[in-house]
Amino acid sequence: MRIERVAIIGLGLLGSSIGLALRERAPGIATTGFDANPNVRAKAEELGLVGVVCESPAEAVREADLVVLCVPVGAMSEAAAAIAEALPARAIVSDVGSSKQSVARALAEALPGRCVIPAHPVAGTEESGPEAGFATLFVGRWCILTPPEDADPEALEALSDFWAGLGARVEVMDAGHHDLVLAVTSHIPHLIAFTIVGTASDLEEVTRSEVIKYSAGGFRDFTRIAASDPVMWRDVFLNNREAVLEMLGRFTEDLTALQRAIRSGDGETLHDLFSRTRAIRRQVIEQGQDESKPDFGRSH
Amino acid sequence: MRIERVAIIGLGLLGSSIGLALRERAPGIATTGFDANPNVRAKAEELGLVGVVCESPAEAVREADLVVLCVPVGAMSEAAAAIAEALPARAIVSDVGSSKQSVARALAEALPGRCVIPAHPVAGTEESGPEAGFATLFVGRWCILTPPEDADPEALEALSDFWAGLGARVEVMDAGHHDLVLAVTSHIPHLIAFTIVGTASDLEEVTRSEVIKYSAGGFRDFTRIAASDPVMWRDVFLNNREAVLEMLGRFTEDLTALQRAIRSGDGETLHDLFSRTRAIRRQVIEQGQDESKPDFGRSH
Repeated sequence: MRIERVAIIGLGLLGSSIGLALRERAPGIATTGFDANPNVRAKAEELGLVGVVCESPAEAVREADLVVLCVPVGAMSEAAAAIAEALPARAIVSDVGSSKQSVARALAEALPGRCVIPAHPVAGTEESGPEAGFATLFVGRWCILTPPEDADPEALEALSDFWAGLGARVEVMDAGHHDLVLAVTSHIPHLIAFTIVGTASDLEEVTRSEVIKYSAGGFRDFTRIAASDPVMWRDVFLNNREAVLEMLGRFTEDLTALQRAIRSGDGETLHDLFSRTRAIRRQVIEQGQDESKPDFGRSH
Repeated sequence: MRIERVAIIGLGLLGSSIGLALRERAPGIATTGFDANPNVRAKAEELGLVGVVCESPAEAVREADLVVLCVPVGAMSEAAAAIAEALPARAIVSDVGSSKQSVARALAEALPGRCVIPAHPVAGTEESGPEAGFATLFVGRWCILTPPEDADPEALEALSDFWAGLGARVEVMDAGHHDLVLAVTSHIPHLIAFTIVGTASDLEEVTRSEVIKYSAGGFRDFTRIAASDPVMWRDVFLNNREAVLEMLGRFTEDLTALQRAIRSGDGETLHDLFSRTRAIRRQVIEQGQDESKPDFGRSH
């Protein structure tokens, strides 16, 4: 089974990056694309994000071997319903959503009997929209596939090869485990960043202008994540509710313990934790998941 | 009043950066330096961080117009006591500590009647030690001076000029207000980052290897801050306890409200907050406090 025609539904950061990566790394693959927003379609045409920008999702998928749904996880159900009739019998339907159990349910329901293999490339930036994409977004990043138990092995292999072709490293995982892992490595960090940026901008004793002025003390790091797409993230929290609440509980327990240590002047507890966390950073860098340069390689 | 001889006590990231910045931007100023760790002194000699590396703090400050204490805030008292006898009568004593009320108290007590003007350049990286410094660390960053009410205006002006000469923008502030502002823009972000990295590495259902592997989903940003110097940060929390606990209270209230919104499926509350926080990022960039490039300008 070879993937020769790819349809991309949703041409934001992820969809446009897939289009550009295919253009650069697999020019033999024909691409079609659709976005519900006509301005995005016009921009996609202008930037050449896909071979053919279509006027309907049905038109985009009509001859596809692989359809990749690149819409917020709360919109998966509707996007799948819109392609159901036109979808070729043997086409693989996949996605790039950040929660996988909810997406698996939505796609299975909208596309009964079809070959659905949900996926999640763990890659992105804080930007969004068709102009935010770039061809190397997936290089060296992990793409997690969460196939249902009865998934066609050939289709799974083809999808795996597809992502490897875009430069990603591929891992197969149970959807439930994915949702727990990503709650920790992505969803809770985002929730915390959104919260602290909100807290800081609502204070009375400290002005917003002061918060921005002195943000280089650490706060500015959080503003990057907190600038991520609001709709995408609203949907992630609503669709991975259980795992997010579970992990949030762990985090607040740990934060309360540190609060107690600060209140009681327990320097040893603080020092022990701060020494342990330093080692994690080294491992992230050693495993190629971040810049080795100080300060993310920011120019100074 | 002109500063012609500067003594740097403590040759870690901040001390070494001051030394290198002076060498590059103000070669007419003579520099001496001391560090309690003999290995750091040897490294400072090798790298030429200061004109003369001294074998005691007293020797380093003996002819100084300005002494900058670049040690953890919990070590300020001891560092000040060690220079008290050798300090010239008219010398200004300053520092680079992240909490200012506690430092003001420590220095006033150890150096009664002397010209003490505490300061805090809001700049740094997650690295530490004499090899981590670089000459441009302070360029475009704010340096906050927190002079006591009876500070000599000439000395204040000289210190202000000193920091401007290193490329910093200078602001004068009350020490209490400083501690509140920095609790928000620096101390709480660090505390949160240390906590989440600790939480993530202690889970049973998700392995540490998975946390690292999929850290590009957001978590990796927090590992940078959580790699900061453990002693420095232990001291910050112990010495700015009140403001940190106050701001932590606000943060956990807001986090609890978001938790409730997730639990009850209140997408509107989530979307509203996430839209507001996006605007803060733009202001941070507009005011030159972070990279305008996506993802901190990380290479992709």
